[in-house]
Amino acid sequence: MLSKNQLKLVNSLRLSKYRLEHGLFIVEGVKLVEEALKSSFDIYQIFATAEWIGFGHLSKKKSLVDLVEITQAELEKISALNTANQVLALVKLPAELPVPAATGEWTLLLDQIRDPGNLGTIIRTADWFGIDRIIAAENSVELWNPKVVQASMGSVFRMPVHYTDIENYLSVNAKHVQIYGTLLEGEDISKVKLGKEGIVVIGNESHGISETVKTLITHRITIPAATAGSSGRAESLNASIAGAVICYEIRRQCPK
Amino acid sequence: MLSKNQLKLVNSLRLSKYRLEHGLFIVEGVKLVEEALKSSFDIYQIFATAEWIGFGHLSKKKSLVDLVEITQAELEKISALNTANQVLALVKLPAELPVPAATGEWTLLLDQIRDPGNLGTIIRTADWFGIDRIIAAENSVELWNPKVVQASMGSVFRMPVHYTDIENYLSVNAKHVQIYGTLLEGEDISKVKLGKEGIVVIGNESHGISETVKTLITHRITIPAATAGSSGRAESLNASIAGAVICYEIRRQCPK
Repeated sequence: MLSKNQLKLVNSLRLSKYRLEHGLFIVEGVKLVEEALKSSFDIYQIFATAEWIGFGHLSKKKSLVDLVEITQAELEKISALNTANQVLALVKLPAELPVPAATGEWTLLLDQIRDPGNLGTIIRTADWFGIDRIIAAENSVELWNPKVVQASMGSVFRMPVHYTDIENYLSVNAKHVQIYGTLLEGEDISKVKLGKEGIVVIGNESHGISETVKTLITHRITIPAATAGSSGRAESLNASIAGAVICYEIRRQCPK
Repeated sequence: MLSKNQLKLVNSLRLSKYRLEHGLFIVEGVKLVEEALKSSFDIYQIFATAEWIGFGHLSKKKSLVDLVEITQAELEKISALNTANQVLALVKLPAELPVPAATGEWTLLLDQIRDPGNLGTIIRTADWFGIDRIIAAENSVELWNPKVVQASMGSVFRMPVHYTDIENYLSVNAKHVQIYGTLLEGEDISKVKLGKEGIVVIGNESHGISETVKTLITHRITIPAATAGSSGRAESLNASIAGAVICYEIRRQCPK
């Protein structure tokens, strides 16, 4: 049964402030909770229907987890999904790790991504292509926002994401690795020789790459569009789409 | 001033049923209304603040358009944007055109895309890379849904999109062009020789490509992932991301 206090706790975790206060975030649905259980993250509590519990998802970790059986109606009260899906877990926020140097790795640097769906999709895509790390500007959307976790499809449990002062990060690393950014008059990305390391800057959804960050880019690139016809063409690509194409091109040139 | 009937009409157009009944759809914000005005679409009515009108956006088409000046407060009543942005236009639904044969063109075929943001992003991306046409399964999300129009960033005014019986479409065209689909054990897309024509199937967000459509695919492809590490990797890519990578690869091999 779901207590009033539990209901209140789960609903409070929709807000960043309370996630930090309690050190917890929400993971929902059979697939994502499975990913959380497989991961190195600590599970604080699981709310699940008899159906989920009966299936034996918890067999191996059972003794470690505080499991609360709830009804479908109770699950619907705490679920933010369109269709509440058997289980909701509260997972402990991981410790913040120091930001390592960018050498020997491929890093995506997000210059103020605002949309949680976009951030989740970028994490999922980076995970697929084996990008090593994501660096996000401090005022980007928060990683543990339930919509980010959901859109990442579980990749949030694998991909290291650090929030930091990106201008400082870029200044320090510019001496050692190339910093790529999609800017006007950039070199066709398919013609650029991409090696074993580098930082790729992805701009904000509405405003692109900010002026200060632009000055720190060492290699301007562009994703070639079709030549505009008489009626013109799209002026730009969505931030997560541009990021995906660059990740694909990195992996095409350097399989991993 | 905004009349009660105008308010009622605009709000009704959030629903597909009334869009069809009135033959109109909604376009919002300075940038998108500008794209609508540049396009071949007929504008039925524009609701705009004094600021937008004063800027002279309408100079060339002024005499043709029914322009209603409204206040910011009135605009907020009819706007679905987080920040109402000066102008909202009602645009006439275009005539449905017959579906042409797939020969000599690159076509994206959408097998039940449900999310309006995904559809809009796919249209924008296809426009960028100069894909010729989009074919959507009849039960896909509707093209004139305001969220599709918004996410397309205006590409919806340029990209031909047809809703049709996709199984029939694929059966008819399979004799003449290759039908590519991302399936297990497909050939690495970067190694496939892509020519001047073909159909690329994009699956549904949750269920991928449907069983019947799978049987109609003539060339299985795959987007190479990094080799899974000890903790595994993302199991799949978002539908619009997979589509974008394929569009990029088509254009990389055959610039247009």
